Amino acid sequence: MAQYDTQTLTQAVIDRLADCKDARFKQVMTSLVQHLHDFARDVDLSPQEWITAIQFLTDTGKACNDKRQEFILLSDTLGLSMLVVALEQARGAKGRKGATPATEATVQGPFYWAGAPERRLGEDIAEGVSGEPALYTGRVTDLEGQPLAGALLDVWSGDGEGVYDMQMADAGMRARGKLRTDEQGRYWFWSIRPTYYPVPTDGPVGRMLDRMGRHPNRPGHIHMMVSAPGHQPVTTHLFVANSPYLDSDAVFGVRDSLIVEYERHEPGTAPDGRKMNKPYHVAHYDFRLVPA
Amino acid sequence: MAQYDTQTLTQAVIDRLADCKDARFKQVMTSLVQHLHDFARDVDLSPQEWITAIQFLTDTGKACNDKRQEFILLSDTLGLSMLVVALEQARGAKGRKGATPATEATVQGPFYWAGAPERRLGEDIAEGVSGEPALYTGRVTDLEGQPLAGALLDVWSGDGEGVYDMQMADAGMRARGKLRTDEQGRYWFWSIRPTYYPVPTDGPVGRMLDRMGRHPNRPGHIHMMVSAPGHQPVTTHLFVANSPYLDSDAVFGVRDSLIVEYERHEPGTAPDGRKMNKPYHVAHYDFRLVPA
Repeated sequence: MAQYDTQTLTQAVIDRLADCKDARFKQVMTSLVQHLHDFARDVDLSPQEWITAIQFLTDTGKACNDKRQEFILLSDTLGLSMLVVALEQARGAKGRKGATPATEATVQGPFYWAGAPERRLGEDIAEGVSGEPALYTGRVTDLEGQPLAGALLDVWSGDGEGVYDMQMADAGMRARGKLRTDEQGRYWFWSIRPTYYPVPTDGPVGRMLDRMGRHPNRPGHIHMMVSAPGHQPVTTHLFVANSPYLDSDAVFGVRDSLIVEYERHEPGTAPDGRKMNKPYHVAHYDFRLVPA
Repeated sequence: MAQYDTQTLTQAVIDRLADCKDARFKQVMTSLVQHLHDFARDVDLSPQEWITAIQFLTDTGKACNDKRQEFILLSDTLGLSMLVVALEQARGAKGRKGATPATEATVQGPFYWAGAPERRLGEDIAEGVSGEPALYTGRVTDLEGQPLAGALLDVWSGDGEGVYDMQMADAGMRARGKLRTDEQGRYWFWSIRPTYYPVPTDGPVGRMLDRMGRHPNRPGHIHMMVSAPGHQPVTTHLFVANSPYLDSDAVFGVRDSLIVEYERHEPGTAPDGRKMNKPYHVAHYDFRLVPA
């Protein structure tokens, strides 16, 4: 009737896409089946290993909730998320040869929380989380360096000990905020200097990393989604220069162009006029957006 | 620091397995990362497609519960489960050249329910589910045809309309049972003749099949796990000859050697002595087990 061996089965599965009306979906599923089967054949996957994988994927789904996305974490730690970012960047770079480089993207990660509060320029978004204060300052421009007024920065980070608000018992938003650039395309706000931290290790992905012999740490960074009318949004980080794990980010997200010096200052009047009674840092970065 | 492009990223992820102490896990994860990344590159996976896949996998995990295993269904419908069965069979066949073929395995599927009741030979396990009655009869032997006394058959099927007890509102076990062969290795029991049915289509996998342009149907079959001391257990089906979808099983599980004629009989005394007041079927199959 319709019996297949370890080789002919793959084409039989692909042939079932004959009536698929979505050409792109057909292409993606054809490639997925081919690579999935090639993987199983390459390692001669056993039934015991297969059921272990089924249980792992099930556990990963069960670990997802409003505050946690374990499948994104899995994708991040296997380098898939960063590969998708890099593929997007490579597509965008075509036809822009010679143009000034745009701000590079990196992974969104599992801690984005839509609906962060709008903040005025210069406000402190830290909401009292632990950590050394830091003034973030810079501009949002187009690729020619022209300022983009009213550009939106959607910012989030962990605290000075590497813990995100989503991971705290108190469920409120902290160290998150939306800011809009002024007429000169400038932004500035206060938060803390983030430190390195482990991705969540108390779930299936943590157990996988442990078994892989890998550390779970990410270098210190602050997340930004930056957008402006008529331009492509970019989801990125600023990484803290000299942070541990810059050379072995657990999610492979580091870009040299995103590493920023956090200049340390003694107590006194900060560049924006704020009186600081303890040491603080200043991190400067200009975002450059690609036309839409 | 540690910046990778769409090509170098893959090796960077694999290099992180340097400290993995489990050689087999290292091999499996290396191949998985390579194929996963090759897939993403081959189709130039977009961020929108990636997040759709993340949500699909999350939904698939959420759809799993005590009575439903959507990840097994996903594996089944992508042909992965049957590939793993075929790889296992190919490994087992090495070094047994020329021996009488053993009963072939096929997919376990998502409806196995451990702990089915022990039944006496000749009992009706249908528990009143709808369907035309069928007498199942045959022997369990080794590869030389010697009977295996006390071999265990763990049997399950849907009803005569293709519905499994797990899918019924009433949560009790039906059309399931464990039977042991007699001193001559014989088994016989009554149930119903199964019909073709769709795999569950009200979840993420159903939506995937629909988008792939595929029907969700499986030909009529009854599941058996057959085991005996000193022999390798086999998880298999008997398929109903001439059932629709034998040539396009949604999970690719059909084996020619597992297709069985259901001989129709008019009301009267069945071969086991049972008085039947309506038509019934007789399905005969001898299971042959491989030495452990």
